[in-house]
Amino acid sequence: MGIEIKHALALNAFDGAKRTAMDAATRALLNRRKRNFGAASVLFYRAPLNIVRAEGVWMIAADGRRYLDAYNNVPSVGHSHKRVAEAIAAQSTAVNTSTRYLNDIIETYAERLKATLPKSLSNVVLTCSGSEANDLALRLAAQASGGQGFVVTETAYHGNTLAVTDISPSARKPGTSVRHVKTVPAPGRAAYGADIAGGFAKAVNKAIAVLKRDGLRPAALICDTIFSSDGVFADPPGFMAQAVAAMRAAGGLFIADEVQPGFGRTGERFWGFARHRLTPDIVTMGKPMGNGYPMAGLATRPALLAAYCAEVGYFNTFAGNPVAAAAGLVVLDVIRDEGLQANARTIGADLRARLAALAQRHAVIGEVRGAGLFIGVEFSHDGDLARPDPETASRVIDGMRERGVLIGAAGRYGNILKIRPPLCFAEAHVDFFVKALAQVLKN
Amino acid sequence: MGIEIKHALALNAFDGAKRTAMDAATRALLNRRKRNFGAASVLFYRAPLNIVRAEGVWMIAADGRRYLDAYNNVPSVGHSHKRVAEAIAAQSTAVNTSTRYLNDIIETYAERLKATLPKSLSNVVLTCSGSEANDLALRLAAQASGGQGFVVTETAYHGNTLAVTDISPSARKPGTSVRHVKTVPAPGRAAYGADIAGGFAKAVNKAIAVLKRDGLRPAALICDTIFSSDGVFADPPGFMAQAVAAMRAAGGLFIADEVQPGFGRTGERFWGFARHRLTPDIVTMGKPMGNGYPMAGLATRPALLAAYCAEVGYFNTFAGNPVAAAAGLVVLDVIRDEGLQANARTIGADLRARLAALAQRHAVIGEVRGAGLFIGVEFSHDGDLARPDPETASRVIDGMRERGVLIGAAGRYGNILKIRPPLCFAEAHVDFFVKALAQVLKN
Repeated sequence: MGIEIKHALALNAFDGAKRTAMDAATRALLNRRKRNFGAASVLFYRAPLNIVRAEGVWMIAADGRRYLDAYNNVPSVGHSHKRVAEAIAAQSTAVNTSTRYLNDIIETYAERLKATLPKSLSNVVLTCSGSEANDLALRLAAQASGGQGFVVTETAYHGNTLAVTDISPSARKPGTSVRHVKTVPAPGRAAYGADIAGGFAKAVNKAIAVLKRDGLRPAALICDTIFSSDGVFADPPGFMAQAVAAMRAAGGLFIADEVQPGFGRTGERFWGFARHRLTPDIVTMGKPMGNGYPMAGLATRPALLAAYCAEVGYFNTFAGNPVAAAAGLVVLDVIRDEGLQANARTIGADLRARLAALAQRHAVIGEVRGAGLFIGVEFSHDGDLARPDPETASRVIDGMRERGVLIGAAGRYGNILKIRPPLCFAEAHVDFFVKALAQVLKN
Repeated sequence: MGIEIKHALALNAFDGAKRTAMDAATRALLNRRKRNFGAASVLFYRAPLNIVRAEGVWMIAADGRRYLDAYNNVPSVGHSHKRVAEAIAAQSTAVNTSTRYLNDIIETYAERLKATLPKSLSNVVLTCSGSEANDLALRLAAQASGGQGFVVTETAYHGNTLAVTDISPSARKPGTSVRHVKTVPAPGRAAYGADIAGGFAKAVNKAIAVLKRDGLRPAALICDTIFSSDGVFADPPGFMAQAVAAMRAAGGLFIADEVQPGFGRTGERFWGFARHRLTPDIVTMGKPMGNGYPMAGLATRPALLAAYCAEVGYFNTFAGNPVAAAAGLVVLDVIRDEGLQANARTIGADLRARLAALAQRHAVIGEVRGAGLFIGVEFSHDGDLARPDPETASRVIDGMRERGVLIGAAGRYGNILKIRPPLCFAEAHVDFFVKALAQVLKN
């Protein structure tokens, strides 16, 4: 199509080569950042934000300006949540040690977590990051299947280790590929038309055939079940089933990467795979798990874990320590006590409805998609999904920031707004968000 | 030699197949552990410890028994340190977000950390775990050298990701090997006699030759500079230089894995590589960095990082968040304010001297080694290092536990006590430790 493919983030990232208006304090901080973190430092916005405080759905900059956070999906129960901070503090003064010793709180946490998952996935492995969880999941799948090949979506992101970067096309230079990883288009209308379920399964079967042609047995299909970096694809619920069946028929497993959709964000169910009525072989999780405390993990069948551990074994020094367990426990408590999953469902539906109404008035919005508080707004020329419009997405992101709202972009072309606010987002925040977007689109 | 090689940990781990005397509460907790964590759960001791509290150098079990912790090198400034807990609590209630935004505390932390490092290593990448840091270091080295091959010691442990497990022989089944990883014997007298520096360099050159024979260019020599899992090899300072020079002459880099020796533990210097008067190309770090808060990272030259980021880039959601920075900062403060590096030097020297005195009376101690509060005690038949005695090491570990002291084993045969207490270890704790060991050795 002749459209340049860029990392979605790059469109709105700080670019050292361009001169940007910035106050002296931010400029000084930015210079320190460059000296300290060099090329690995990528900041949001052409004029980066200096965030000094955050509470609930708000982030507060050094200049006192408040920003409505509709982007960050880690502080899922709300920024700086008191109960989370208190639980971390209390456990940090009691004991924080590795899982080489017994401690009641680790078991209590694992049991609470397991109560949200299919009964068959009764073994948990805790890690520090979603990357570590996915890195281990790949090995479990390879061991169980005897395969080496993986199928992922074409703009997938699954993390940052060497092995996981291989299965994350969105983290690699456009055009590069890895032999044991085959990609399929994201499960949207643009790629598959009306029959997303059938088209997606056909694409997975084709990828399996390419793996086999290259002499590789399939190990797994791994999907972020909300397809966040691909641009948020949620509907119709159940569309993944045929593709998963295709991979299983070929001897591979299904890994549900719940790092982004998990923990109630999609509203209808606690996990993204549950919306699709699936029981994965492995579920990986992370980001909102400790509301910012570094923790992640996976759940799987005992036999699958045992097969891998008989060969190699797995231990993670920090993971599953009592402080992580305390943070994880209180996050589950808060989701329950504050009714955040139900809130994600109702407020998310309301936000989507109001965005759909905006789309009626603005042809540049090609589609509004999502589930719960995980929403994608696709910009395309004249609403034609075949003609992505990343420039508008980029201008909207900057315009929203000027109006005090933080969002980001996703998708192969960076033309899809990614809206993922804390789950305590309320009606007033929806108003604030939609009014800001309406103004930006008008200009 | 006909000696069975086992994972060092396996010798003293809980073994579900054996019946062990245990109180009903511990037994119940153990059953939950098995149901929740399955095959990936490996616990210390045949009768695992249920630790409910810890303070300073002491860990307290559910039955009220206090154990002197001479094993855990994560809570390096002392268990449940008040200042660390307070810093984490304060920052958790202010803001905890990713490094996509600016925040003064991240830069302050990076600058304080860099002040401990060689000037040339002026770029920092923060991660959640030492495994993630080493995983990235391998990629930086491969990119910079154009090579794919790595040289490690034969019982090295560098972490738990797929890529890092490949360079961790101690984590794999004995006898298995990975084509792009070649091993050299640990740098002790048993392998190299009196000329450890020359012998070690010769072995590294041989490993480089084997890589080349297999068609692989060398990317790096990576060493834990205290060789912890190999059995603790510290002397003579400087013995690594020739080996590092050999790798550089072959076009490869030197990665110093400071996850265990770093942050003052070896007493004389803040970093293990500094004892050897080396400037690594990449320094990785972790465990004690946040005194239990999950954080780790690496430091390298800006050009090295830029070369990798031009191809792939690196971002880590949780890493370098303001809470991690707050924890890391206060750990540096406490090391300075409580004089912990100097304490590691003097108390460590005293402990080694008293262990050496014990060795005079017990032929089963083949060697006492180490630097600062990182000490290895090697058990061998009649003191002959060629005849390792893991059975005695195992009995000593159990006997010490019965006398209220926690230690572990290391080395290819699991015959070396690994002693790494919190750095606030005092004279009274040395007494307690040495008296317990003397009693155990008498029996």
